[in-house]
Amino acid sequence: MQEISQLHAIFDRTRGYINRFMGIIQPIIDAAQDEHTRLYYHHILEEEEQRMGRLQELIPYLESLAAENKTDKLSDRELSQMLSDINLERFGLHNFREHLELSLYEFQDDATRQVLDGMREKTHEDYLHVKEMMATLSSRFSDVYQADLTDHDEGHDIHQVDHLKASASAPHGVASVIKHSPAPTPAKKGLTVGSLKGK
Amino acid sequence: MQEISQLHAIFDRTRGYINRFMGIIQPIIDAAQDEHTRLYYHHILEEEEQRMGRLQELIPYLESLAAENKTDKLSDRELSQMLSDINLERFGLHNFREHLELSLYEFQDDATRQVLDGMREKTHEDYLHVKEMMATLSSRFSDVYQADLTDHDEGHDIHQVDHLKASASAPHGVASVIKHSPAPTPAKKGLTVGSLKGK
Repeated sequence: MQEISQLHAIFDRTRGYINRFMGIIQPIIDAAQDEHTRLYYHHILEEEEQRMGRLQELIPYLESLAAENKTDKLSDRELSQMLSDINLERFGLHNFREHLELSLYEFQDDATRQVLDGMREKTHEDYLHVKEMMATLSSRFSDVYQADLTDHDEGHDIHQVDHLKASASAPHGVASVIKHSPAPTPAKKGLTVGSLKGK
Repeated sequence: MQEISQLHAIFDRTRGYINRFMGIIQPIIDAAQDEHTRLYYHHILEEEEQRMGRLQELIPYLESLAAENKTDKLSDRELSQMLSDINLERFGLHNFREHLELSLYEFQDDATRQVLDGMREKTHEDYLHVKEMMATLSSRFSDVYQADLTDHDEGHDIHQVDHLKASASAPHGVASVIKHSPAPTPAKKGLTVGSLKGK
């Protein structure tokens, strides 16, 4: 099943993006002047931390399936479970794209905005790709798995908005008062909000 | 397994809360004056819509297990899957509590703030209860399931903040310019962001 290798590559990329995103957002939490701002970014980071936890299990699993060509040997229940896990991460990619879009409204410096928007663009592509693969796989294995392929995007104008453009004239957020390197160094893999906070 | 009935009651309650929350938040999206505000609440509602989709499958499943006393007959894999699904909804309750806390910063009228804070308080209790039950269940079934019982709350001062108090003096949000009934009528079950939007 060639899709497994492609899915593995996508989830491995987004895992790297989570670490990079955490490195950009943690300073905002540390510098926040009010509880609302702190809670807001803390919440976003916590959701990404939960996603990271799931990916840390799913990525090696997909890797072992691809390497040992074991997909054909999965039981119906294992196959169904794998497709369900992948579908959950389809939503994860969608939500991450929105976390990136929301963050664009915080940063005014072009370097950080370009990093965020680059991740946003690739994440959107990855989301669409996973969605497409899920449709193929759930059609192929319709006897064991019925995917909820709901696309909550439909009918929402908000997804047609160019948030890079819309955020360009947004009021300066807390990011404008903190010092950060223009091209943030990706955080080490596996760091948590807690461990980053202690730095 | 008496925990199943308790978990069913908790997830059934939070399903009702999601509908009530959607009824409160949708007018904010409709009245939003800028793309950031629209994206922000749209994003929160979309995540709750995803959670609703999962609960719509989990709740009847738990109900059938409890009614027919079938838990003992589950295979190891089915048991492991059920515990994994419950653990995901533990995070779901945690994230919902934060969505409620974040929303407190939007509303200035006491009636809506009390509704939000009431749901927040009960959701926090439910979260702690599910966490406790997960610890018990994953210890009892440690041969088939290893729960990730990470509590991302630890070490985060933000969770010690009384957001009802902190939000009382927050700047007025878009909620201050829209008309809404003081005690919002719960939305009908099963409504989506899309269908609410069309109203």
